[in-house]
Amino acid sequence: MSESNSVLIGRKPVMNYVLACITLFHGGAKEVNIKARGRAISRAVDVAEIIRRKFLSDVKVRNIDIGTEQVQSSNRNAPTNVSTIEITLVR
Amino acid sequence: MSESNSVLIGRKPVMNYVLACITLFHGGAKEVNIKARGRAISRAVDVAEIIRRKFLSDVKVRNIDIGTEQVQSSNRNAPTNVSTIEITLVR
Repeated sequence: MSESNSVLIGRKPVMNYVLACITLFHGGAKEVNIKARGRAISRAVDVAEIIRRKFLSDVKVRNIDIGTEQVQSSNRNAPTNVSTIEITLVR
Repeated sequence: MSESNSVLIGRKPVMNYVLACITLFHGGAKEVNIKARGRAISRAVDVAEIIRRKFLSDVKVRNIDIGTEQVQSSNRNAPTNVSTIEITLVR
């Protein structure tokens, strides 16, 4: 249930992810998790802010977690660290 | 007091900001605020993660706030919105 209400932010335009989250809320979700890694973290914050300021004013930020993941790149032996963010929106 | 313990993240290398925060903690600060806007938000998360994972393991994330600021650009009449983040680290 929690996993199915997650939106992973990638390189598409911000509005794609905004619409994905709004669709989940309109489908009855009480909670949506916005997840991102690395450079996409800024876009995740944009998505959360646009949703609650322009579209669903009853949506609140319940929690924000940051963390680090190890990524094994194909051309190097040592894994590299990448920062992560998870923004939990509730309605 | 609170304002003097803020580090604003810009376009310099991540380690510059990591060192700025560590210097504040070593100078006796109990709390350091990492602030960023727009694209620099990802870097702010990197700074917080590097500090607590590699340098000061007793530092915790106490709070993370996201928001929106209006920026008046010089070549357009309408102000544009930019996302912000403020990460509060405590020791």
